[in-house]
Amino acid sequence: MQPRPLPIAGGRFPAICAPLVARTHAALLDEAAAVARKGPDLLEWRVDFFDAIADRKQVLETLAGIRRAAPGMPLLFTRRSAREGGEPIRITEDEAVALYRAVCESRAVELVDFEMGNDAAHVQQVRDAARECGVALVLSFHDFAKTPDAAALGSKFATAHRLGADVAKVAVMPQGMDDVLALLSATLDASNTLPIPVVSMAMGPLGAITRTSGWAFGSAMTFAVGQNSSAPGQMPIGEMAGAIEVLKRAMGR
Amino acid sequence: MQPRPLPIAGGRFPAICAPLVARTHAALLDEAAAVARKGPDLLEWRVDFFDAIADRKQVLETLAGIRRAAPGMPLLFTRRSAREGGEPIRITEDEAVALYRAVCESRAVELVDFEMGNDAAHVQQVRDAARECGVALVLSFHDFAKTPDAAALGSKFATAHRLGADVAKVAVMPQGMDDVLALLSATLDASNTLPIPVVSMAMGPLGAITRTSGWAFGSAMTFAVGQNSSAPGQMPIGEMAGAIEVLKRAMGR
Repeated sequence: MQPRPLPIAGGRFPAICAPLVARTHAALLDEAAAVARKGPDLLEWRVDFFDAIADRKQVLETLAGIRRAAPGMPLLFTRRSAREGGEPIRITEDEAVALYRAVCESRAVELVDFEMGNDAAHVQQVRDAARECGVALVLSFHDFAKTPDAAALGSKFATAHRLGADVAKVAVMPQGMDDVLALLSATLDASNTLPIPVVSMAMGPLGAITRTSGWAFGSAMTFAVGQNSSAPGQMPIGEMAGAIEVLKRAMGR
Repeated sequence: MQPRPLPIAGGRFPAICAPLVARTHAALLDEAAAVARKGPDLLEWRVDFFDAIADRKQVLETLAGIRRAAPGMPLLFTRRSAREGGEPIRITEDEAVALYRAVCESRAVELVDFEMGNDAAHVQQVRDAARECGVALVLSFHDFAKTPDAAALGSKFATAHRLGADVAKVAVMPQGMDDVLALLSATLDASNTLPIPVVSMAMGPLGAITRTSGWAFGSAMTFAVGQNSSAPGQMPIGEMAGAIEVLKRAMGR
């Protein structure tokens, strides 16, 4: 596999990302400070958990607050769509896209994540905003119910690249260990053929191995729990870092 | 996958096996005592490393010594063939088969490992000796150069079962991570279709993940280093147990 790291955190491969899922400004700042102390490589703000998501000014102020609470820590900004496992939110898709643009223009984040399955015009608008502002764009695909076959997963990675992603991300729910192998196989293939970093995980208990070892098959980032998980199967940051370290040593990496 | 444990060690799944590779009686007893203290589930005596392999009486005395040095620890007796990665030895195949029979009759071991690629008559003789003595038979296949495709690996597991194995073992050398996936896929399939425990590993640095996580794909045993490794890629027992524990917890097992 081709180890292509994310364009952050000094190229750590894989990067360990911890989600922030608190609902209020104050709670988010506390969460950011506490999680940053656990030593992830970046933080993801899952803004769909934020009570004041409809108030753009509050979102930007909270983003600035998170940066101050976790100094030097790269930030990934994500409004996970409810269709792909996110929280229900009270803003329209047009408003969500405008929010992404405002966040990019604030230069307060290094990466943004947007689902490749969104309206094509919206994907293009988020991509343009990210490019203009020098923010890296993660285009993502999630299936919380099942795992498409390896060919279909490969086409998701390729679609992300075709749509202009800087990082292609695929997350699936395995029904058996064969699904876990399909996800790893598609990741290995995409990491060998695409010129951008790829990120993947199989969620839930069956997929645990992809969170600790997906990097060995080319996945550039893994999500681990700081204070609260944002998807099923995430492990604590310390355990995750330890598991990666043991495997790296055994692999001579 | 079907978790079918080895018929030893209270059904621990996976069982952690530590090899003994010292060359003399005295050194083996020291090695057995030291390795047993590290808490593996069983010990494998790799008798092809033993200087006095040609002296059947010494072999049996050393076996009895190992049992006393590691009380309560199940033993796997293995003369690894030089063709499949073992040490060159100075006894004929007929003498090796007679040694297996003597070892089985001593009732000093719980399992013996013999390569399924040996002469068919020899495989049958070792199988008969093991059956008569209530010793479990591991029939094994090793490729230290490459990894056959998943179908060919599946046929190795099936062959072991057809030849009367109580445990089917396959060990290969991966050239890339796709080979690692082929090994895991064949293991998963064999564990779902064969009525006996299967054991597998991809050797060397690339295969490390199969040693810590192969159990999640159905492999009933993993080899870890007590004092000295017997094949490339084996990790220390403590690290191995820790890595298995972290993954088990994440998988809710």
